[in-house]
Amino acid sequence: MTVLSEIYPADRVSLREVGLRDGLQLVKAFPSTEAKRDWLAREHAAGVRHFEVGSFLPASRMPQFADVRDVIAAVNALGGAHAAALALNERGAVDALETGLGEIVCVVSATEEHSQANMRRSRREAVELVGEIVRMRDAKGHGAIVNVGISMAFGCSLAGAVDPAEVLRLTEACLAAGADIVGIADTVGFAGPRQVAALSASMAALCGARPFIVHLHDTRGMGIANAAAALDAGCRVLDGSLGGLGGCPFAPGATGNVVFEDLVFLCETKGFATGIDLGALASARSVAERAMPDEQFYGSIARAGPPAAVAWRA
Amino acid sequence: MTVLSEIYPADRVSLREVGLRDGLQLVKAFPSTEAKRDWLAREHAAGVRHFEVGSFLPASRMPQFADVRDVIAAVNALGGAHAAALALNERGAVDALETGLGEIVCVVSATEEHSQANMRRSRREAVELVGEIVRMRDAKGHGAIVNVGISMAFGCSLAGAVDPAEVLRLTEACLAAGADIVGIADTVGFAGPRQVAALSASMAALCGARPFIVHLHDTRGMGIANAAAALDAGCRVLDGSLGGLGGCPFAPGATGNVVFEDLVFLCETKGFATGIDLGALASARSVAERAMPDEQFYGSIARAGPPAAVAWRA
Repeated sequence: MTVLSEIYPADRVSLREVGLRDGLQLVKAFPSTEAKRDWLAREHAAGVRHFEVGSFLPASRMPQFADVRDVIAAVNALGGAHAAALALNERGAVDALETGLGEIVCVVSATEEHSQANMRRSRREAVELVGEIVRMRDAKGHGAIVNVGISMAFGCSLAGAVDPAEVLRLTEACLAAGADIVGIADTVGFAGPRQVAALSASMAALCGARPFIVHLHDTRGMGIANAAAALDAGCRVLDGSLGGLGGCPFAPGATGNVVFEDLVFLCETKGFATGIDLGALASARSVAERAMPDEQFYGSIARAGPPAAVAWRA
Repeated sequence: MTVLSEIYPADRVSLREVGLRDGLQLVKAFPSTEAKRDWLAREHAAGVRHFEVGSFLPASRMPQFADVRDVIAAVNALGGAHAAALALNERGAVDALETGLGEIVCVVSATEEHSQANMRRSRREAVELVGEIVRMRDAKGHGAIVNVGISMAFGCSLAGAVDPAEVLRLTEACLAAGADIVGIADTVGFAGPRQVAALSASMAALCGARPFIVHLHDTRGMGIANAAAALDAGCRVLDGSLGGLGGCPFAPGATGNVVFEDLVFLCETKGFATGIDLGALASARSVAERAMPDEQFYGSIARAGPPAAVAWRA
C-alpha cells in the first residue's frame, strides 16, 4: 500500500505536473507516446516527481489518452516518480487498476449543474463512485492512492457562486468515502487570492495533518498570486502544467493551468525547496513545444530565465 | 499646493497607469499625440485618475516624449486626473515646472553601479538632486508633489543583491530631502512575493501615515503575486501599465510592467475598490493596440474578461 505521506510529505511542497492530462484535454494534435516519454524523462531529470498523465476513457472519445497505460509504465520506469491518472467511471477504474499507477484521480463537482453537465451524475452519485473506486482498489489490493478533485470549487460558470461550506461538506464526504487526498480546483479561473487563501485555510483546518491539493487555472492572470495565497494558507501540494498548457470546455478562450515553471520559481522564492532545476525544465518544455507546434505555450521564466545576478532561492 | 492625501488617500488603493511613460521607454514606434489623448480620455472614462505620461528629456534622445507638455495638458483637461512625469536632471525639472503637471517623478538607484550607469550620478548626487528639485518647486510656488522612485530596490542586474536596509536608508534620505512620496521599484523583475511583502512592510513602518508606491515588472511572472503581497503588507499605491507595456534596458528580453487591467481585477477581488471599470478599460487598450500594432500586449483579463457568472468584486 502506498503511504500518502511518502508521496506528499507534509513538510515540503509537492508540485504535480498535469500537462499530459489537463494540458491535453482540449488539444487536437497531441504528442506521440515517444514524445510523451521524452517529456517525462526530461522533467524527471529536472527533478519533477509527480505526474498526472491521462484519463481512462474510451480511446475513440479521447485519443490523446489512448496510450495512458504505456505512459504510466514510462513514469514507473523513472526512479521515484509517481503516476496519476483520471478515472471518471467504474469502467475507467477497472482499467486503471489493471495498471501500476500510483494514484487514481476522481472528480466531484462543487455544483449540481456542473456535475450533471460534466459527468451525467449528481454530486451524491459522484461521491458514491469515489467510495466504489476505493472498494475496488482495496478488493484488488492495489497500492494506488485515491485523489478526489473538487471542480468549480471557487465558482462555477454554469451555477455561479459556490458556497465554501459546500466544498468543505463535499471534502468531508469524499474523505468519509475513503479518499486519501482531496483537491480544490479553480476550474474556470474565477478566483482571486483572497478567496483562495480563505478556502485553503478552511481545507487546512479540515484536513489537519493530511495534505490537500490546490489546482489553479491562470484564466484571469491570478494563477501565481493564487498559488502564493494557497501556500501561505498551508497548502503543500499544487498542480501546474508545463508551459501553462490546458483549458476547460466550460471556460472558452481561457488560458490553461498555472504555468509549472513559474510555479517552481514562486515556490523557491518563497523558501519552499522544490528539488526542481529550472534550466533542466526548459529542456522538457522544448520537447513539448516541438511535439505540439500549434499550441500556445505560456510562462515568463521560460522567456526571461531566473535572475542571474542574485541568489533567488529564499 | 497639492495635498498628498488628496492625490493618494491612505484609506483606498490608487493605481498609477504608467503606460505612456514606462510603457514607451523602449518602443521604436509610438502613439501620436492624438492617440495618446484618446488613450487617456478612454482610461479616464473607465475611472483611471493617475497617469504617468512622459519624461522631460531632449526630444532628440526620446522622441516618444517630445509631446509631454501637450500630454500633461490633456490629462489636466480631464476632471480629477493627476499627471506625473519624470525629471532626471535640473534641466528636466525646469521644463517640468513650466507645465501644470501634478507630480514630478525623480529616480534614485538602490545601487551605486546602476546609479552611475543609468544617470551618471552617484546615489548621493541623485538624492541631492531630489532636494534641489524640491527647492526649485518651492521657489516657483508650483503645486506638484515630488515622487522618488528607488529603482533596483529588489535586486540589481548590475550589482546583484540589494540590502533592504539600503533601500530604507535611501527612502529616509529622500524624505529628508523633501520628497512627498517614495516608491520601490522591481526594475528588472527579480522579486518574489516574500521579498515584496518584507520590504513593503518595512516601508509601511518607515512611512507611517504617508503612502508609498510599489512599482513592479512582470519579467518572471510574479507581478500580480507581488502586487498582492504589497497590498497585504499595507501598500496602497501601485503602478501598472496598460497591456503590460514596457521594458527596461537593464532587463533584456523582459516583459514589461505588471498588467494594469489584471492589477485592477486583483484589487477588486481583494476587496479594494479601484473605481475602474474593466469593460471600459478594454476600449483604452484597443486604442493603444491600434496605435502600436507591432508591440506585444499582455494580460489575461483583456482576453478572458472578468467572470460573468459570479460577483467577483469582494
